[in-house]
Amino acid sequence: MLNTILSNVHAKTPLVHAITNYVTVNDCANIVLACGGSPIMADDIGEAADITSICASLVINIGTLNERTVKSMVAAGKRANDLGHPVVLDPVGAGASALRNETALMLLREVRFAVIRGNISEIKFLALGGGSTQGVDASEADKITSDNLAGVISLAKAFAKSTGAVIAVTGATDIVADASKAYIIKNGHPMMGRVTGTGCMLTAVIGAYAGANPGSVLDAAAAAVCAMGLCGELAYQRASELGAGTGTYRTLLIDFFSRLDADTLKAGAKIESD
Amino acid sequence: MLNTILSNVHAKTPLVHAITNYVTVNDCANIVLACGGSPIMADDIGEAADITSICASLVINIGTLNERTVKSMVAAGKRANDLGHPVVLDPVGAGASALRNETALMLLREVRFAVIRGNISEIKFLALGGGSTQGVDASEADKITSDNLAGVISLAKAFAKSTGAVIAVTGATDIVADASKAYIIKNGHPMMGRVTGTGCMLTAVIGAYAGANPGSVLDAAAAAVCAMGLCGELAYQRASELGAGTGTYRTLLIDFFSRLDADTLKAGAKIESD
Amino acid sequence: MLNTILSNVHAKTPLVHAITNYVTVNDCANIVLACGGSPIMADDIGEAADITSICASLVINIGTLNERTVKSMVAAGKRANDLGHPVVLDPVGAGASALRNETALMLLREVRFAVIRGNISEIKFLALGGGSTQGVDASEADKITSDNLAGVISLAKAFAKSTGAVIAVTGATDIVADASKAYIIKNGHPMMGRVTGTGCMLTAVIGAYAGANPGSVLDAAAAAVCAMGLCGELAYQRASELGAGTGTYRTLLIDFFSRLDADTLKAGAKIESD
Repeated sequence: MLNTILSNVHAKTPLVHAITNYVTVNDCANIVLACGGSPIMADDIGEAADITSICASLVINIGTLNERTVKSMVAAGKRANDLGHPVVLDPVGAGASALRNETALMLLREVRFAVIRGNISEIKFLALGGGSTQGVDASEADKITSDNLAGVISLAKAFAKSTGAVIAVTGATDIVADASKAYIIKNGHPMMGRVTGTGCMLTAVIGAYAGANPGSVLDAAAAAVCAMGLCGELAYQRASELGAGTGTYRTLLIDFFSRLDADTLKAGAKIESD
Repeated sequence: MLNTILSNVHAKTPLVHAITNYVTVNDCANIVLACGGSPIMADDIGEAADITSICASLVINIGTLNERTVKSMVAAGKRANDLGHPVVLDPVGAGASALRNETALMLLREVRFAVIRGNISEIKFLALGGGSTQGVDASEADKITSDNLAGVISLAKAFAKSTGAVIAVTGATDIVADASKAYIIKNGHPMMGRVTGTGCMLTAVIGAYAGANPGSVLDAAAAAVCAMGLCGELAYQRASELGAGTGTYRTLLIDFFSRLDADTLKAGAKIESD
Repeated sequence: MLNTILSNVHAKTPLVHAITNYVTVNDCANIVLACGGSPIMADDIGEAADITSICASLVINIGTLNERTVKSMVAAGKRANDLGHPVVLDPVGAGASALRNETALMLLREVRFAVIRGNISEIKFLALGGGSTQGVDASEADKITSDNLAGVISLAKAFAKSTGAVIAVTGATDIVADASKAYIIKNGHPMMGRVTGTGCMLTAVIGAYAGANPGSVLDAAAAAVCAMGLCGELAYQRASELGAGTGTYRTLLIDFFSRLDADTLKAGAKIESD
């Protein structure tokens, strides 16, 4: 399936509309280009729905939420829903403030998401109204281990069932699930957590992959998660050879994404289904 | 002329005021520094005109347009006009939404631009009210080829005549024209299109070059277009040697700009006039 | 003292809330991660105080000031004051526009700062209502030299006394002072001025170091200034070996920060006290 997902991305160059945070927006744009899509950022209520109309998918990221853009998220989300474009949500920091909580939950009511990607704390908050979010990173207490893996899979499937969205829970182990099937992915490297926005970037890539594969969103999301993790591994290997730090690592992450082909992805993917 | 343009930039360190999009703003600031200018970003209506007053030029980029900053663009643009500072417009995505179209056309009415730089789809939209903009990249249908080159030159000259601005149409072949003279520039590399913001960065460099050469705006814009294209070629060459991807390529683009001297530019410029 | 400061950062991974400008926000987030902290950017009035509550420190940077976020700066600042969290101010461009001047002075009245970091022109403006700010860089006329060093130290101590804040005046020579003690730091490299945001990044690092060392804010700020300057030197050395420009230099700056340990810092720090 990895082959098909990537071929469609490269054949279609999907336009991805992102309403996202200003911390990592440049990296999101660059990784969408690197992975074979074409990004457009537009967050004014005066054009958000229009821009969505000419795109293949929409990515909504609440990382630097503000009143002005929340309205644009809803308008663009509804338009994407009307047009049948996949909409991807990154509920950055859900659980960390009342505003983020309320906005994330409001978005879940107003927009039908094709994929929701977050760390375990964020997903727990959305699914259970709980979790122990600490800033924008998953809390230690929530981390996925071999002991709680089955529980996280059940949670993701149940949340997928209630929302109709594919749920991607990312961390050391990643779970990508719809109501009936879950992929367990073990790609990635801890150094990814030392660069801001690797989660946002992954969400943007999911937007591109889903935009080019609207009929196979579960597979598209899983492929994106594998690809991001694998590029994270390859970047670490190269950064180690160079004796480099996190600045170079971030650059290498985009480098490897821009050169990723289906054979490399298939050879490196650590994915199994449940 | 390349010599004079660059000498003036290095002698004057022009302060460039940019009201620009948040996707590529950091790259714009860094390339202004790299090319010998000094950037300042300020988009609040409470200070936009004041900041323009202390600068040598103003760059207006509509990449992430919003109601709040449009007012600041007009206020700063009028102040720059009053002071005789060159104002450069980057009509990112003109043609892609009603808001961008109306805003770009309104700016053309309210502010006198020294340079307008866009891809062929954006320039066609502004000049003819047409074109086939697709997101923020030029559409295939609009691409400049040897077959339509003469037509694009005529279009640029006519649009220059009607606006009083130098028109820079950039793509695989670049046209920089005023009402009576056009430069045809063939520097550049396709990999520039795989990094977000190379167009925005070029516009920012035009701002710096024009700010230091307010009496020679056509030459300043042409020099900036050559310089950007040449750095794009040098960066590609180096990235290829390194086996690098688009992340490294972007870094190299700024590297080469920060070390560009007039001799290198003169040796590498592929420029002729019409 | 450098040892203790760094150990606390690494032991505590302080959450740093930044309300900052959109030009350099990504670099600020990455350098906070690189130095051992964890950044969160949130500037909406609906959550600014809530986010501050879960963090260890607050950084306020007025680089791209706007009406919307000024209110959030005050709300978050007051909350941080109530909770006893260190608040760090970067008065970017104070002196360059009436809005920046008024806002910076208003913030000094409304919020109790633990550290104020600026270039000499910005600090002079705040302390004396004068200076000759030129854009966002220190003006030539204001530069710290061996002739005026004693005067700058007196100014910093007096301003520290009147505000209760540690004052960090950075440039070729850096002064970090409270009312009774001043550190003079001679780390750094001129190439830092050719990358946008090295000042903002330093302020963000001060936020992380002070957040992990709330009882030793003078030492924390001095350690951050040394660390930034030393990484600037190491990055320059490496960039020179590579024949690289400012793009690579910026990446290396973050690389060296991400690998900085107390021994390296102690060996490289050029710090004396007055």
